[in-house]
Amino acid sequence: MSAVPSLDEDMEQGLVDGAAASPAVRRARAWLSRAAEPGSVAFWRFVEDAGPVEAVRRLRAGRAPDVVRAMVGARAEQDATPADLLRAERSGARLVVPEDDEWPGLLLHGLTVATSEEPDDPRHHSPRTTAPVPPLALWVRGPGRLDELADRSVAIVGSRASTAYGEHVSGELGHQLGERGWTVVSGGAFGIDAAAHRGALAADAPTIAVLACGVDRAYPAAHSALFHRIAEEGLLVSEWPPGAAPHKHRFLVRNRLIAALTRGTVVVEAAARSGAQATARRAQKLGRPVMVVPGPVTSAMSVGCHELLREAELGAVLVGSAAHVVQEVGRVGEGLADPPDRPSGPRDGLSDLACRVLDACPVRVGVGPERLAAIAGCDVLDVIRVLPALELADLVQWTGTGWRLRPPEQQTRG
Amino acid sequence: MSAVPSLDEDMEQGLVDGAAASPAVRRARAWLSRAAEPGSVAFWRFVEDAGPVEAVRRLRAGRAPDVVRAMVGARAEQDATPADLLRAERSGARLVVPEDDEWPGLLLHGLTVATSEEPDDPRHHSPRTTAPVPPLALWVRGPGRLDELADRSVAIVGSRASTAYGEHVSGELGHQLGERGWTVVSGGAFGIDAAAHRGALAADAPTIAVLACGVDRAYPAAHSALFHRIAEEGLLVSEWPPGAAPHKHRFLVRNRLIAALTRGTVVVEAAARSGAQATARRAQKLGRPVMVVPGPVTSAMSVGCHELLREAELGAVLVGSAAHVVQEVGRVGEGLADPPDRPSGPRDGLSDLACRVLDACPVRVGVGPERLAAIAGCDVLDVIRVLPALELADLVQWTGTGWRLRPPEQQTRG
Repeated sequence: MSAVPSLDEDMEQGLVDGAAASPAVRRARAWLSRAAEPGSVAFWRFVEDAGPVEAVRRLRAGRAPDVVRAMVGARAEQDATPADLLRAERSGARLVVPEDDEWPGLLLHGLTVATSEEPDDPRHHSPRTTAPVPPLALWVRGPGRLDELADRSVAIVGSRASTAYGEHVSGELGHQLGERGWTVVSGGAFGIDAAAHRGALAADAPTIAVLACGVDRAYPAAHSALFHRIAEEGLLVSEWPPGAAPHKHRFLVRNRLIAALTRGTVVVEAAARSGAQATARRAQKLGRPVMVVPGPVTSAMSVGCHELLREAELGAVLVGSAAHVVQEVGRVGEGLADPPDRPSGPRDGLSDLACRVLDACPVRVGVGPERLAAIAGCDVLDVIRVLPALELADLVQWTGTGWRLRPPEQQTRG
Repeated sequence: MSAVPSLDEDMEQGLVDGAAASPAVRRARAWLSRAAEPGSVAFWRFVEDAGPVEAVRRLRAGRAPDVVRAMVGARAEQDATPADLLRAERSGARLVVPEDDEWPGLLLHGLTVATSEEPDDPRHHSPRTTAPVPPLALWVRGPGRLDELADRSVAIVGSRASTAYGEHVSGELGHQLGERGWTVVSGGAFGIDAAAHRGALAADAPTIAVLACGVDRAYPAAHSALFHRIAEEGLLVSEWPPGAAPHKHRFLVRNRLIAALTRGTVVVEAAARSGAQATARRAQKLGRPVMVVPGPVTSAMSVGCHELLREAELGAVLVGSAAHVVQEVGRVGEGLADPPDRPSGPRDGLSDLACRVLDACPVRVGVGPERLAAIAGCDVLDVIRVLPALELADLVQWTGTGWRLRPPEQQTRG
């Protein structure tokens, strides 16, 4: 029935020997995305160390470390991968993996840095963690290219029990940011989330809903028309395979991804001790700007916002308009992949022009100076002039066919 | 007709030789308060250097520096002092001068420090200045003691064109602060000011209206009943003599006094580029906490508040309740008379207990350890244990009958 070969077939055919064998890697990551709940540092590290194909092989053979095997349990015996991939294909979805060009590696690198900084936190070994661990793979549904949309994106989050004021402001922000060419990222929930998505769609701008269930499911059900429109014009994104149910703990795990996939997070309305606050704090730990919309002090739905603005250490900025938001996130490429408290970075001392060229460099496939000049909005000669300095600073590398960003782990630390 | 001797009589009777001669000093300062517009650094310094009685003598004899003589002009020939003092007496007002115990010297010392830090600003020689210069004297009307009321006071300022939301919050803050034993200081204007005064009065708490006209005048006239109540239960305060008109420029001069007389300033509603913003900035320059009430970002009357909260250098704190306000201003004695950017102070290194005992010490009259223990909420033995250390640090002094704060000019700088 299925045209997709099973993992067993891959192994039989010897396709799994090379990690570069993309279909096998994709199938391996599809299997992994169902085998364990995302958000576990131990599991992510096991896959990083072994490689996805070898990780699957060991798990299926019962040769993985105990802590990792315990997370997978009986699912080690199963292989729903062909069904998952088929189900995804039927709903217009696909699996994007770190090995793909489309993977938003630069943004998600912030999670990798955060993971390496909090290595021994025992909470990270719990399946119900909110640890800053990168996703193993992302199921996406829609016409947008994930890396491109995320590269110029802002998260708008807030309460489900929002007020008319909050929904108005969220919709206006979504609309104005969409008009300015920014992707609005939110969680697809009632209230602030939905208003932000709708504002963006009204501006004919793409918007991303990061879900805590499969991208082929509508949760909440009342938003099925909204999700349908997002899937037509933007992207639905999830770490969970098609059909996955929106379990409560998955929302916390999902929230870290909203913070990590964006240039900054705007909290529109939040009650005291709310999930939106947690997303804001996660964004701050990732070094992304935290922006907060105030409201009447008499409104319970603004109490959480005001709490965030009163936390001096958080450094949240009060915003009242899209102009304020763009002022915070507009300097593309800043604050990315840097630990929040890092005193200086390799970009320090770079000229404005060099920064723009650096921002123009893609993460994976190298491109030529003409393309870089077009993206950076400068002259080809300027690009050619600054590239040697960027290479000397270990910020870019020549791939044989073009220039790309040097992967961060290879970058010399300042 | 007048029982008050004129300045000429003082001089004839030789009463003016000693600056300690209080009636003569008071009359001299009454004369000075009519002779020149308050707010001039040059004029204030002239009076400081010569002493008030000698200053009057020189001005009347035409022997003062040109810049000072130019400010007084033809008024040097006049002596309305007996009439002013009589008019004050008839309206239940009196003149409080720096030589009085009632003078709020510790709070106003902030203006002296600020004056000495901005000595050569040419704006200070203009009669329309908003320079941080201390007042020469204060006309006060009401039963309250100025120093005591100001010692535990908070300014609540904001727009005259306030919204129902702003008035509600202002009234609530005034009421709750009054209930907690804080004096609400404002400008007696329409809108936020009036709501704050009324909130305090509703809590049977004293409130101070700092006016830009004589304390016997009602401006705005619609507030005549409000001013009447304030004069019965709190204080009306003005730098201008009885009968003085509320000229427009006097409001800016007056605003510095609202900031200086209080432990901190709360801005409730403010339009962009408003007087309330100027008062907040003045408070910040005096080292007093600036607190701001947010509102809907859709309200023009909150734009000025949000501007203040977005100015990182201002360090304004978002407040939504009296509890938030008290949290900022509650540590009595902190931040007073200190230049805003002072890196360390004599309190650095003090234990928590020592800080509490220090906060419990009154400014003027010395009190015993039992009373200090009651205020500080600790054991008498603890008080007795930390007092020697506080005395060694030049922070408190023994008056012969008890302990009090050492006046700041005598404190050793850390």
